[in-house]
Amino acid sequence: MPCDMVVEAGLLATQDDRRRVLANQALIIHGGLIQKILPLEDAAELRCARRLNLRHCVVLPGLVNAHTHSPMTLFRGLGDDMPLMEWLTKRIWPLEAGLTNELVHLGSQLACCEMAALGTTCFQDMYIFQEATAEAVEAFGLKAVLAEGILNVPTRSYQTPEEAYARIANLLADYAGHPRIRFAVAPHTVYTTSEAILRRSFQLAEAYDLPWCIHCTEDDAELEHSQAMYGMRPVALLDRLGCLSPRSVLVHGVVLAEAELHTLARAGASLVHCPRSNAKLASGLAPIAACLEAGVRVALGTDGPASSNSLNMFQEMGTAALMAKVREGDSTALPAQAALDMATVHAARALGWQDLGRLAEGGPADLTAVSLDLPRHTPCTNVVSHLVYACQGAGVELTMVDGHTVYERGCFPTVDYDGLRRELRDALGWARSRLDSISA
Amino acid sequence: MPCDMVVEAGLLATQDDRRRVLANQALIIHGGLIQKILPLEDAAELRCARRLNLRHCVVLPGLVNAHTHSPMTLFRGLGDDMPLMEWLTKRIWPLEAGLTNELVHLGSQLACCEMAALGTTCFQDMYIFQEATAEAVEAFGLKAVLAEGILNVPTRSYQTPEEAYARIANLLADYAGHPRIRFAVAPHTVYTTSEAILRRSFQLAEAYDLPWCIHCTEDDAELEHSQAMYGMRPVALLDRLGCLSPRSVLVHGVVLAEAELHTLARAGASLVHCPRSNAKLASGLAPIAACLEAGVRVALGTDGPASSNSLNMFQEMGTAALMAKVREGDSTALPAQAALDMATVHAARALGWQDLGRLAEGGPADLTAVSLDLPRHTPCTNVVSHLVYACQGAGVELTMVDGHTVYERGCFPTVDYDGLRRELRDALGWARSRLDSISA
Repeated sequence: MPCDMVVEAGLLATQDDRRRVLANQALIIHGGLIQKILPLEDAAELRCARRLNLRHCVVLPGLVNAHTHSPMTLFRGLGDDMPLMEWLTKRIWPLEAGLTNELVHLGSQLACCEMAALGTTCFQDMYIFQEATAEAVEAFGLKAVLAEGILNVPTRSYQTPEEAYARIANLLADYAGHPRIRFAVAPHTVYTTSEAILRRSFQLAEAYDLPWCIHCTEDDAELEHSQAMYGMRPVALLDRLGCLSPRSVLVHGVVLAEAELHTLARAGASLVHCPRSNAKLASGLAPIAACLEAGVRVALGTDGPASSNSLNMFQEMGTAALMAKVREGDSTALPAQAALDMATVHAARALGWQDLGRLAEGGPADLTAVSLDLPRHTPCTNVVSHLVYACQGAGVELTMVDGHTVYERGCFPTVDYDGLRRELRDALGWARSRLDSISA
Repeated sequence: MPCDMVVEAGLLATQDDRRRVLANQALIIHGGLIQKILPLEDAAELRCARRLNLRHCVVLPGLVNAHTHSPMTLFRGLGDDMPLMEWLTKRIWPLEAGLTNELVHLGSQLACCEMAALGTTCFQDMYIFQEATAEAVEAFGLKAVLAEGILNVPTRSYQTPEEAYARIANLLADYAGHPRIRFAVAPHTVYTTSEAILRRSFQLAEAYDLPWCIHCTEDDAELEHSQAMYGMRPVALLDRLGCLSPRSVLVHGVVLAEAELHTLARAGASLVHCPRSNAKLASGLAPIAACLEAGVRVALGTDGPASSNSLNMFQEMGTAALMAKVREGDSTALPAQAALDMATVHAARALGWQDLGRLAEGGPADLTAVSLDLPRHTPCTNVVSHLVYACQGAGVELTMVDGHTVYERGCFPTVDYDGLRRELRDALGWARSRLDSISA
């Protein structure tokens, strides 16, 4: 059997259709793919250039972060515990008004490090200057579904929606056929765009066969804006404009009404749940148990690190499971396996990247390994419970994309992490001086 | 200046009265105490046996976990996502019915490892066989406030409340004057005890001058039990019995009424908030913002790892801050500094151990160091925000109690961790076979 590498796993959380967790397995990896999954003893004799002993770990599919704004790592901790409008007007918008391609590149590099160290191998990004993010992802080695956020006002990276569409076309051309970098079309919200933008962007998504992502129904204020602009709620508007289909990815959905869940389910649209961001901004608790009940596909995302403060998908899984129990007053709501599904298979399907989020023969070797030696994983009676409720991102020893290591025990083989941190210190000075000049 | 050790801190989160965060400080430690806090450059020449370079870290007071059931590490992950009564009757009670002194000792040792690795230096424990927990804490090197839970039914460690009182007296005698081990008196709840137990236990707490801890007002079911047994709510009962004073530590308080907050504030009683456990068991969200507004001292606790699945106080801080925002619909509720206070100074005061939870000259060298080199702590604009919202327990490099290291970069110098894990594997077999025999 041709073999670049054998990964020896103490436990293997396959996330296959039967959600099997197998003990003592070997993953035979060749050409970036999992060629074979064998019991360890059957792989003992196999000759192979590299043999990774992860017998003290659970190996699971690389997590898929279905929504973030990766360059906002730059703004982490710069505006917590503030009212939403003050946070936007006194922190985020002034900072974003000074963004450059170079700063976005730095922020995305940092985000790649953070995600890899926390077991994430693929993320969906919505921001400006996405060519800089693409460059960071390309060099770092993660997978990403990148989307230049489309607004009806000028941004730092374009003046008009037409320019934004042109940017998307250019990026698609530049990365045509790239094995790790894909794109989506992403109008920002219904109230920061227009009917024309919503329609046109959805047509583009269809023409290019890409996911179409939008922040939707995040809080009561958004409902009011939508009502004022369009005389209806966001989901009704999207439905009327023909923007709901299996390629539609609605982010947040905190204040979705019961009937809207069925609209989404019928259309085959996906919802991305970002529980930590929704909580920190006091938007509320999305009706996730009801979504699942109605048959809506739900993925998990961290949202940007300016609002959720970390890109930790383990954390999102645990928070989602706890918040659902609080919301429903039911300790059986959103069990651990459902939370893990939302961070793996469902997220992959929402982004239209079907072979991610599971470990299967013939599929990509996108995986992460979590040590079971930690006190918090002891005793290990139920590894899915531990991944969701106890792990919280600790003990990630290795993260791999297409068989290439992007993180291993504190090291990032594809990036000069210390150099990056030095550059970030300068960027930090920039952010501070901007905020000082605003408050002065 | 006499000096056993110099700890060099990049940042020092003192948690002093002004909550100062100081850059580039040296802690001069001698005889287990912080003798002096100096700017790094002023300590450069100091001769000292040991010099710990933690210039890439924030050094903060060891966290104080104000409520747990440490031996329940044994039951972690054995009953998630279940209805409360099923969890108790099919998992916890059958397992507890088979507990022994030896198993409690193992579980508490594991808990000590987990807490030390997560920056906790002192915890309040409520469980049975507390002599085994005391032994584990004594050998490991943490501080603890231990309480044999008092029930009106026989437990594995005593038959009658009188025997429980005798056990407390014996433990007090055995550990009289111990610098790290203290005790509390802890009736379990109002509905699992009696008026006689509540009164007598409070008298004991007064006679011994100890904290008096009780689970109180955790959920609606408890209110009903209390109403049925006593014709009133738990807080009213405790008030009538004279059990509310500054030594009273009420745990949970999820369904506290507005008037009860003022009762607690007037009495000077403390509340321990366990947000992850309350969420996972779907008890609800305690009114913490209102408690603080009313002047109630609020501490944080993890509750037992059978319900919260980890003993991670960083996690409790972050969850508390997020949950308060959700509950109040206000993104300014429970800011990061307030959450850190609840895990340090307020927890120390609730347990009557005033010199813990802060780093001050003359105070104990109980501290932990968190690396700021991690991606999630970059850039470091606001270290208190990072500790509460981004850290989640990652990057703890060192934990020290009275100047003695109990955790350092994955190692536990005071315990044979690998041997402990082997013993725990056997204990796990025991737990599994018990549960199998129940379901058979």
